Amino acid sequence: MVGGGEGAFIGAVHRIASRIDDKFTFVAGALSATAEKARRSAAALGLDPARSYGSYEEMAESEKARDDGIEAVAIVTPNHMHFPVAKTFLDAGFHVICDKPMTTTLSEARQLAEIAARSGKVFVLTHNYTGYPMIRQARAMVANGDLGRIRVVVAEYAQDWLATRAEDGGSKQAGWRVDPQKAGAGGAIGDIGTHAHNLACYVTGLKVEKLAADLSSFVSGRRLDDDASMLLRFAARDGTAAKGMLWASQVAVGNENRLTLRVYGETGGLEWAQEEPNRLWYTPLGEPKRLLTRGGAGATAAAAAASRIPAGHPEGYLEGFATIYSEAAELIRAAAAGRAPPEGIALPTIEDGVAGLAFVEACVKSAKEGGAWVAL
Amino acid sequence: MVGGGEGAFIGAVHRIASRIDDKFTFVAGALSATAEKARRSAAALGLDPARSYGSYEEMAESEKARDDGIEAVAIVTPNHMHFPVAKTFLDAGFHVICDKPMTTTLSEARQLAEIAARSGKVFVLTHNYTGYPMIRQARAMVANGDLGRIRVVVAEYAQDWLATRAEDGGSKQAGWRVDPQKAGAGGAIGDIGTHAHNLACYVTGLKVEKLAADLSSFVSGRRLDDDASMLLRFAARDGTAAKGMLWASQVAVGNENRLTLRVYGETGGLEWAQEEPNRLWYTPLGEPKRLLTRGGAGATAAAAAASRIPAGHPEGYLEGFATIYSEAAELIRAAAAGRAPPEGIALPTIEDGVAGLAFVEACVKSAKEGGAWVAL
Amino acid sequence: MVGGGEGAFIGAVHRIASRIDDKFTFVAGALSATAEKARRSAAALGLDPARSYGSYEEMAESEKARDDGIEAVAIVTPNHMHFPVAKTFLDAGFHVICDKPMTTTLSEARQLAEIAARSGKVFVLTHNYTGYPMIRQARAMVANGDLGRIRVVVAEYAQDWLATRAEDGGSKQAGWRVDPQKAGAGGAIGDIGTHAHNLACYVTGLKVEKLAADLSSFVSGRRLDDDASMLLRFAARDGTAAKGMLWASQVAVGNENRLTLRVYGETGGLEWAQEEPNRLWYTPLGEPKRLLTRGGAGATAAAAAASRIPAGHPEGYLEGFATIYSEAAELIRAAAAGRAPPEGIALPTIEDGVAGLAFVEACVKSAKEGGAWVAL
Amino acid sequence: MVGGGEGAFIGAVHRIASRIDDKFTFVAGALSATAEKARRSAAALGLDPARSYGSYEEMAESEKARDDGIEAVAIVTPNHMHFPVAKTFLDAGFHVICDKPMTTTLSEARQLAEIAARSGKVFVLTHNYTGYPMIRQARAMVANGDLGRIRVVVAEYAQDWLATRAEDGGSKQAGWRVDPQKAGAGGAIGDIGTHAHNLACYVTGLKVEKLAADLSSFVSGRRLDDDASMLLRFAARDGTAAKGMLWASQVAVGNENRLTLRVYGETGGLEWAQEEPNRLWYTPLGEPKRLLTRGGAGATAAAAAASRIPAGHPEGYLEGFATIYSEAAELIRAAAAGRAPPEGIALPTIEDGVAGLAFVEACVKSAKEGGAWVAL
Repeated sequence: MVGGGEGAFIGAVHRIASRIDDKFTFVAGALSATAEKARRSAAALGLDPARSYGSYEEMAESEKARDDGIEAVAIVTPNHMHFPVAKTFLDAGFHVICDKPMTTTLSEARQLAEIAARSGKVFVLTHNYTGYPMIRQARAMVANGDLGRIRVVVAEYAQDWLATRAEDGGSKQAGWRVDPQKAGAGGAIGDIGTHAHNLACYVTGLKVEKLAADLSSFVSGRRLDDDASMLLRFAARDGTAAKGMLWASQVAVGNENRLTLRVYGETGGLEWAQEEPNRLWYTPLGEPKRLLTRGGAGATAAAAAASRIPAGHPEGYLEGFATIYSEAAELIRAAAAGRAPPEGIALPTIEDGVAGLAFVEACVKSAKEGGAWVAL
Repeated sequence: MVGGGEGAFIGAVHRIASRIDDKFTFVAGALSATAEKARRSAAALGLDPARSYGSYEEMAESEKARDDGIEAVAIVTPNHMHFPVAKTFLDAGFHVICDKPMTTTLSEARQLAEIAARSGKVFVLTHNYTGYPMIRQARAMVANGDLGRIRVVVAEYAQDWLATRAEDGGSKQAGWRVDPQKAGAGGAIGDIGTHAHNLACYVTGLKVEKLAADLSSFVSGRRLDDDASMLLRFAARDGTAAKGMLWASQVAVGNENRLTLRVYGETGGLEWAQEEPNRLWYTPLGEPKRLLTRGGAGATAAAAAASRIPAGHPEGYLEGFATIYSEAAELIRAAAAGRAPPEGIALPTIEDGVAGLAFVEACVKSAKEGGAWVAL
Repeated sequence: MVGGGEGAFIGAVHRIASRIDDKFTFVAGALSATAEKARRSAAALGLDPARSYGSYEEMAESEKARDDGIEAVAIVTPNHMHFPVAKTFLDAGFHVICDKPMTTTLSEARQLAEIAARSGKVFVLTHNYTGYPMIRQARAMVANGDLGRIRVVVAEYAQDWLATRAEDGGSKQAGWRVDPQKAGAGGAIGDIGTHAHNLACYVTGLKVEKLAADLSSFVSGRRLDDDASMLLRFAARDGTAAKGMLWASQVAVGNENRLTLRVYGETGGLEWAQEEPNRLWYTPLGEPKRLLTRGGAGATAAAAAASRIPAGHPEGYLEGFATIYSEAAELIRAAAAGRAPPEGIALPTIEDGVAGLAFVEACVKSAKEGGAWVAL
Repeated sequence: MVGGGEGAFIGAVHRIASRIDDKFTFVAGALSATAEKARRSAAALGLDPARSYGSYEEMAESEKARDDGIEAVAIVTPNHMHFPVAKTFLDAGFHVICDKPMTTTLSEARQLAEIAARSGKVFVLTHNYTGYPMIRQARAMVANGDLGRIRVVVAEYAQDWLATRAEDGGSKQAGWRVDPQKAGAGGAIGDIGTHAHNLACYVTGLKVEKLAADLSSFVSGRRLDDDASMLLRFAARDGTAAKGMLWASQVAVGNENRLTLRVYGETGGLEWAQEEPNRLWYTPLGEPKRLLTRGGAGATAAAAAASRIPAGHPEGYLEGFATIYSEAAELIRAAAAGRAPPEGIALPTIEDGVAGLAFVEACVKSAKEGGAWVAL
């Protein structure tokens, strides 16, 4: 693991997620860019001091030299380090599991995609919300034609933790997220908008063709957007061009982590909210709305494959994340064995990572042009 | 009453709403443009045959001639008749209660505003959702500064009854709503978008300055929009320019009459849904979300003034509508008596009606220009 | 109307409910036992002073003597007056619409049933919750066998307005409800428990055979129960004896008017809550839960018959109450015309009123015997 | 681990739960009473074959003999094996983590409590729902007096998976649960009623003094109860004797795992549902209802201590269970080191296990006596 030391949020999430299905063991890390902090974090986590590194370059080199070197690296740093760290480890011959957004620029994202392709290694992007069973089910239902041709997609990701200057309070997580040097050109759009964008595309199988975005920095002195609203046009499919709306806000007081997705097609509608992830509302045209639950009577094979326990026993954020890790393990071991990847794997791809950066750059460009429509 | 005969929806609503608080009696009508149908409808409703008219012109003339002529007329026809009927009755010296949208064009709306002003008569526009107690409360809370400066407004109005060609099935209500001759230039935006727009402005006290709209006609052969998504910019106030999103759809499968409003300010957030109208969710910045209920511990005077029964006994659509009628009665009787209108009246005004048509025309213009930003 | 003067709650409800469907006009009243208050209340309501009476006896006599005397009387007094007033008006030849509980004792209830039967007049008991469309639908679904044989019924009616000594604050409504002289032997069980009991029986068609009740008076100094919990056994039907639980509380902090009903049978389950009355949750065995809505795709004829406006436009408490009045009008006019009552009427009967008092007396008896099982 | 082989549910849960916080490693097991099945299960789980045992007695003996023997055993067998296995391992000097109900009889439970006390070893009962953060918070709020003296407790645990004869379909889990030889004298009351009972007591700190229970076996041929409803009386505290209702059903069609707890006191009310575990509804007397969330503005130290990730990122059933394991580790390591257990541990105790069996036996006795009140 690179990153994820003291004060971090997502590092701990990755560590738990990687343990849940017992497919990975955490054995080495460069947990902070500050050597002392890296050491302290490693000790707190019970890491072998010999495998706690002061820098990611050292880690790549040393682990490569070991017979029992790591199988894959998890990159959980602020955004600006994703690219150099991923490149280093891919070049060194390791599989990579990387947090999103994949890089800070579209150009880097495209380079990384090439590097990964050349390396022959597995690259997994942790758009973790794609690991939720009912998201898997929604995707399968759309693919199966249960909604008919898609007309409208509404994706929202509303939070309120940046409604005031949290970055002044010493929050490490707020600090880098509002700093263009570390976060990239996108604030809310990079941090959470990419999740909403990814989820909309992941579930519907559609691609955003163009968008018109209105980005705001409501909190005084903030350099990156903390609220983004936009209109979307998807590439046509089967003769229908779906449209959409996307809203990503970190100043919407009263919202904790309100990622929601609504998809409406000619013959059905689906509605899902991340804060109640075990539920999926499905309305077949002209029939009553149905509550589909993870493991319940209306659950599909896609949902079951991403589930651990019976209906009514809520799985949560960590289990959805764990599914990403489990499937990463399957991909990695298939690759190592020269086998084709097992069926049913539905991980976000490196192309999704590129699309995410294209999305961010289009948003920024549209905003600079006064909210004009911009092609992706 | 003009309009509201057999097969209509909103006419019956007006009749019930006018009765609930016992301020009006239904005594005369031109219930249909078809004389026979008007007669039949009047008979079914127990109207005195002598006061069931074959045309609105005849009604205005005859009622004017009676000593016991009507006090006010309710106009519940398809949109295209609002203007001529309202003009006729205002000219004849009657107060007018008129359904929305006020007219079919902005030009007509402006003319009507002048006619009404000149007439000295009361003109009430039945943007009925403003009659809901928790909407009154939301408005009072915003005005009171409970949310601080407003940043983001999200208004949605989602239905699904036009997801297929309901207009082919002989539905009178669907028929005129999809016909530009009768509905005007707006389909969903005129029929329901104007409600969402009005509600957003009514609660926040803000005005839309410009918008970028994406209008679609998803159902094959439909000439007016059945889905509209748009970005909004409000005129600045107190140094902050709020932004917003508005979505009006009649093809969102699984939505019956899902009008919702979310308002986020610097120090608080409010969330309301028309299908659960007795509830208002309020989050003061940094505190837990609170469920404010009509008549409950957190209800304000504004909510109480628009309520009839205690908390937990749900009031609904008809009661909200009835509040419009009750306040109309107060305005009319104050006007008749030469008194100032009583305090606390918070009815939509004729200016709101003009703003509604400006909204529709801006949407249509933006859509024609490929979703460009258009000033209102 | 007898009762319903200043400070009352249910009188105003009856007046609105009787107006909504335009079947009755309020023309005469003995609005208070205090003559001066009766006069003042009548004036406030615009009643003809000649038909505002100082006592119910006077009203019965005078109205009987008029050619344009009342058609029916609505009795909305505290409980202890229901019997004498109903008897007086039935004896005088009037139809009666009476609030619940029907009387204060089972003995009176039985007498009243006899008097009503002898009179040949219509007697309607306003167990108003039976007027909700989705309750009508639930009843029709059970009768239709959609749930199979019923196993378990859970009825709850939770409020919190008596969690403290509201009766000390001068609340007229609290005052008589906690006074055994006026309310009868039941506090919460009489006031709201009878509603829950009635609803459980109304929907399922079952009768309570025996019960074990635990009655409490939590608020210091209160003489009647303010919280009642009990186990129920229903009379067997089709070889299965359903069981149930009933909870009626007026001290459950956080509950406004939380009347809920859940019914589970061999092949399906239904769940309904009065505070969201337009929704009925239905789970067919082995299938996903469905949200049935008033007017929606899953609505039945029984729900439609009790509805006024389309799905998604919430009807509320007053509309449910209005359905009672509309059906009362139909019964009364059929009786007056010597016609059979129209089909589809599903009003609570005087037998339901007797059953309500049997329920109250069984609760009180069980509680006196330490919560022992008592037959009804 | 003893139990938890192929086809089991709770064994996998324990294994994941023990991993989440990285405090335990799964190293040995007697996973099935059938040796071949035990071996196959161990292989599937990657267990060292040398430490996969054919019987629990062999496992206790062998592990005791190893230098690197297990630290603690998790017992996840059907109920009837809890006692002999726990006894064996306690006697062999191991700490024990045991599923509920603790034994099949009260007599065994009392013996086991003695054995555990004598052993000096840690005994942890996995009433896992006590590990939910908002349950911890509810308990802390009651202890802190936020609700005042408790008046009414309503605990429900509704499922529907035994609404038909699931035991005939070869479901291993259904099979033993309906078999008195393996489950004990309680069906639904033992399997889920004990959870509801435990949770009610855990949160309120109250003890059930007596109860009146109505047990049913609705499904034809079933020997144990599949539905249990009961009235509760708690031992008085601070001069008030709280009362309660408890319902445990496995035939309530439409309920997956609907464990809910509602607690009403003199000055506040709390409401919680297991299927939305990150939320706790709190109403202070006379104020609006508040939505307290795990990690949100209203979360207490007690909730935070049992949490891993920020508000809005749902933790679920497995995380609640993991908290039990984490605290077990803390207890065990404190015991091993001769230290006092750390503060803040709030695990269910062996006394809770005894209380659970007393509850089951009281239910059975009451039912046999026709639902009479029975002291615990």
